[in-house]
Amino acid sequence: MHLAVIGGSDAGISAALRARELDPSVDVTVVVADAYPNFSICGIPYYFSRDVHPWQSLAHRTHADLEATGMRLRLDTLATGIDVAGRKLTVVDERGTESTIAYDELMVGTGASPSTAGIAGLDALGAADGVHLLHSMGDTFALEEYLDARQPDTAVIVGAGYVGLEMAEALTTRGIRVTQVQRGPEVLSTLDPELGSLVHDELTRHGVDVVTGTRVERVSKTGGTLTVLGLRDGATFERTADLVLVVVGVRPNTSLLTDAGARTGAGGAAVVDEQMRTGLPHIWAAGDGIVTHHRLLGVTYLPLGTTSHKQGRVAGENAIGGDARFTGSLGTQVVKVFDLVAARTGLRDSEARAAGYAPRSNTAVADDHKAYYPGATPISIRITGNTDNGVLLGAQLVGSRGAEVAKRVDTYATALHHGMTVDAMSDLDLSYTPPLGSPWDAVQVAAQSWVRSTA
Amino acid sequence: MHLAVIGGSDAGISAALRARELDPSVDVTVVVADAYPNFSICGIPYYFSRDVHPWQSLAHRTHADLEATGMRLRLDTLATGIDVAGRKLTVVDERGTESTIAYDELMVGTGASPSTAGIAGLDALGAADGVHLLHSMGDTFALEEYLDARQPDTAVIVGAGYVGLEMAEALTTRGIRVTQVQRGPEVLSTLDPELGSLVHDELTRHGVDVVTGTRVERVSKTGGTLTVLGLRDGATFERTADLVLVVVGVRPNTSLLTDAGARTGAGGAAVVDEQMRTGLPHIWAAGDGIVTHHRLLGVTYLPLGTTSHKQGRVAGENAIGGDARFTGSLGTQVVKVFDLVAARTGLRDSEARAAGYAPRSNTAVADDHKAYYPGATPISIRITGNTDNGVLLGAQLVGSRGAEVAKRVDTYATALHHGMTVDAMSDLDLSYTPPLGSPWDAVQVAAQSWVRSTA
Repeated sequence: MHLAVIGGSDAGISAALRARELDPSVDVTVVVADAYPNFSICGIPYYFSRDVHPWQSLAHRTHADLEATGMRLRLDTLATGIDVAGRKLTVVDERGTESTIAYDELMVGTGASPSTAGIAGLDALGAADGVHLLHSMGDTFALEEYLDARQPDTAVIVGAGYVGLEMAEALTTRGIRVTQVQRGPEVLSTLDPELGSLVHDELTRHGVDVVTGTRVERVSKTGGTLTVLGLRDGATFERTADLVLVVVGVRPNTSLLTDAGARTGAGGAAVVDEQMRTGLPHIWAAGDGIVTHHRLLGVTYLPLGTTSHKQGRVAGENAIGGDARFTGSLGTQVVKVFDLVAARTGLRDSEARAAGYAPRSNTAVADDHKAYYPGATPISIRITGNTDNGVLLGAQLVGSRGAEVAKRVDTYATALHHGMTVDAMSDLDLSYTPPLGSPWDAVQVAAQSWVRSTA
Repeated sequence: MHLAVIGGSDAGISAALRARELDPSVDVTVVVADAYPNFSICGIPYYFSRDVHPWQSLAHRTHADLEATGMRLRLDTLATGIDVAGRKLTVVDERGTESTIAYDELMVGTGASPSTAGIAGLDALGAADGVHLLHSMGDTFALEEYLDARQPDTAVIVGAGYVGLEMAEALTTRGIRVTQVQRGPEVLSTLDPELGSLVHDELTRHGVDVVTGTRVERVSKTGGTLTVLGLRDGATFERTADLVLVVVGVRPNTSLLTDAGARTGAGGAAVVDEQMRTGLPHIWAAGDGIVTHHRLLGVTYLPLGTTSHKQGRVAGENAIGGDARFTGSLGTQVVKVFDLVAARTGLRDSEARAAGYAPRSNTAVADDHKAYYPGATPISIRITGNTDNGVLLGAQLVGSRGAEVAKRVDTYATALHHGMTVDAMSDLDLSYTPPLGSPWDAVQVAAQSWVRSTA
C-alpha cells in the first residue's frame, strides 16, 4: 500500500503521521512544494517579534523527526497533475525535472494562498519593493530580509485579522510605527465590534495607528516611497510607508483537484464529505483547500490550523481503510494581541441569524478569579444563544493575558459540541480556587447573565 | 411565603439569593450562627499569606449587598431546633435569648465542622495554646491573633489536603518554618502519588519539611512547647513546634436535621434527593452537611464550595415551587501550591475500580503551548478511562501557574459531564494560538496518549 500525500503543512503531515501510526507497513510519500515541511505557519509572527529564533524552531517536527516515523519526504517538489484513472501523480522537482509517482491512495493537502482582495498594484510590486504577503516560509524569509536590509521606520498593515494583529504587535516590538488599515467597522471582524473595540484599544495603547472603515484600493511606489490609497467615509485615504504588508485572508488552492475533476463548493474550496472523500476514486483531501464541515452551519469554508490537523488525521486514517469522520468545526479561535487575549467559538448573533437560528446575544463582564485575590482582571464574555430552545450558539471572550481566556473558550466549545443549553452550563462542575476562578466560573456567570437577559 | 434559611455560607446564601432572584415577593430570612455571612472560606489561607487584606474583603458580598437583595439576616443566631409539624424554628441569639421563627419552607445549610481525626490531646488544647483548627472566621481571627502575639518560628501542619497545602504556603510566606505531616504515602491524596509527588517537590523546593506516611496520634504541650507525636513506619515520630494546625478534613453538621427526623447516609451526611428534599415536609437542605449526588459514583459525600453553590441554588428554586435538579458533582477541584497548580475531575483509577468500572490510567506530559514560543512549560496529565467502552472517567493535571491548568481541567469536566469517550476528545474544536496552546491541545495530546496505551 502506497499513500501519496501532496502538501507538507498541517493537513498533509497529519495524514501521513496518522497512516504511519495506525499501520507501519504503509508506504507514505509526502510531496512538499518547498523545503519546509511541517512548519508552524501560525508561529511566523513570533519569528518577527523575535520571540522565536532561529526560524528552524518553527518546525512542529524536524525533517529527521518526520523521517523517523517512516514517511518519505520529497521536498522542493511541485505536484502538477493527477492521473486519476492511472493513480499517478506528476511532479516537478527543483531542477525542473518532471517525474511520476504511482499511488494506491492519494491525500491532497494543497492548502490556501494569500488573498490580495482585489487591491490594484500588487501584481507589479513585490517583496523587493517592500510590499509583502505572509503565508509561507518563503514569504517569511523575504520579509525578514527586507526588514534587515531596509530597516523600515513605518509600515502599513492592510487587514486586522489574526495575522494582521499579530504582525502589528511584532513590527511595533521591533520599533516600526505601524498603521493598521481595516475594511470593516472594527478590528478583528470575527468578533462583534463591542468586543473588537477592546482589541482596538489595546493596539492604540501600544502605539498602533488603527484606521477602520477603510477600503484599500491601490498600493503604488514612487521613488522609494510606498503609498496606500483607499476610501474612507467616501473620502480618499492615503498613507505612505516604508513597508506594506497585505494580510487579508486566504483563498483555497484547488486547481490540482479541480483539474482532476473534483467539484468546488463553499468559498471556492474543493468539496469533500465528512470522511474527507473528494468523490474522485482513491483521492482524499484535507486542510485549507477544502470545504469545512461545521457543526452549526453545515458546509462552509473556515480554514484553521486546528481543523486541518483534524481533517488530515481523518483522511490519513480513512485512506488506509479506516472509518473515521470529521465531526465538524465550531470555528474556535484565539489570538493574543499585546497583553490581551481574544477568543471565540460557534456563531455570533449575525452569523446565527443568517443561518436561520433565532439568536439573542448578551455581554457580561466577570473577573477571572476572586476579586479579593491580587491580580483579578475582568473578562468580557458575549454569549449567543438560541431563543427557541435556549441552546448555546456561540461565545466571544476578551480578557487579559493570564486570565485563562484561551482555555475558558474551550469550555464553551466543549459545551457547544454537545449542544448544551446556556442554562445547563450552570450544571457544569468547573474547578475553583480563589487565585484562579470563582465558585461560579466566569463562563457560568456569563451564561447566567444570558439566561436573565432572555427572561 | 416565608423561606427561612439556616446557614450563611455558600449553600444558605445561594438558596436565599436564588429565591429572591426568581420571586422578589418571597420573604427570606437567613439565620447565621456568626457575624460573617457569605464569607469565602476558601480564601482564608490567602488572608494568612497576606494576599488578602483586610479580612472583610473575604466576603463574597457585604452585609449591605445581601440586604439589598431583600433578604433578612439574623446574625449571631444559632438555630437549635426544628418543629417540623409546626413549621417553626427555635433560635438563640448572642445574648442567649430564645425565640421562634415561623416558616413556610425551610432550607438547612449547616455545613460541616473540622475533623480532628481522633488525635488525642486536641480536646484539652486550644487556640491560646497554639493548637488551631481552621474552618470559620472565628478560627481565622484566633489564628491571626496567635501569630501576631507569639510570632511563632515553627509550625506543624497536620494534613496535606487543599487547606493544609495552602496554609503551608501561607505560613512559609510569613517566614515560619513549616513541617507538613501527612498520613498517606504522598501529599494531596486526592491525586495519584505520581502526580502528588510533583506537589511534594514544590513544597520541598520552598522549604517545607514534608513528612508523609505518618499517623499523628497525639498533640501535647509541655511548658511553652507543643509536641506532635505519631507513628511512621512503625517507629515513633516526634516534632516540636510553636504552632500546630490540624486540617484533616471535615464532618457534616447534621444534628439539627437528624433531631428533626432526617436520615443520614454517605459520610454521615443528611440524605437529600437530587432536588434537595430531605424527606421532611417543607424542609430542604444543601451544602457540606448533606450527601453529594455524583455523576459517576451515585450518592457519596464530597463537600466542595462549588457544589454547595449549585445545591443551594437548586434548593432555593425548589423551596419556592420550582423544579430544579442538581445534576451531580464530578469532584472537580484545583489548588495552587506556590508556583504549581494541581487539578482533578472525575475518578482516579483506584476510585473507578472500587466503583465497579474497568479503568485504565495513563500519564502524558504535554507543553501548555508551542515549545518555540517562550515560557512553554510541561503539564503532567493522567487520564483514567473505562476499558469496556472507552469512556472518560477522570483526569488529573499538574502544571505551572500560568499554564492554564485550572481551565484545562474544565474541558475534561465538561467532557465527563457528557460521557464522552477519551478518543472523542480529539474531535473537540479547542482554541489554538502558539503563545497559549498547540494545534492539538495538551488535553487532547493526553487523550491520544491514553488511547494508544490501550491499543
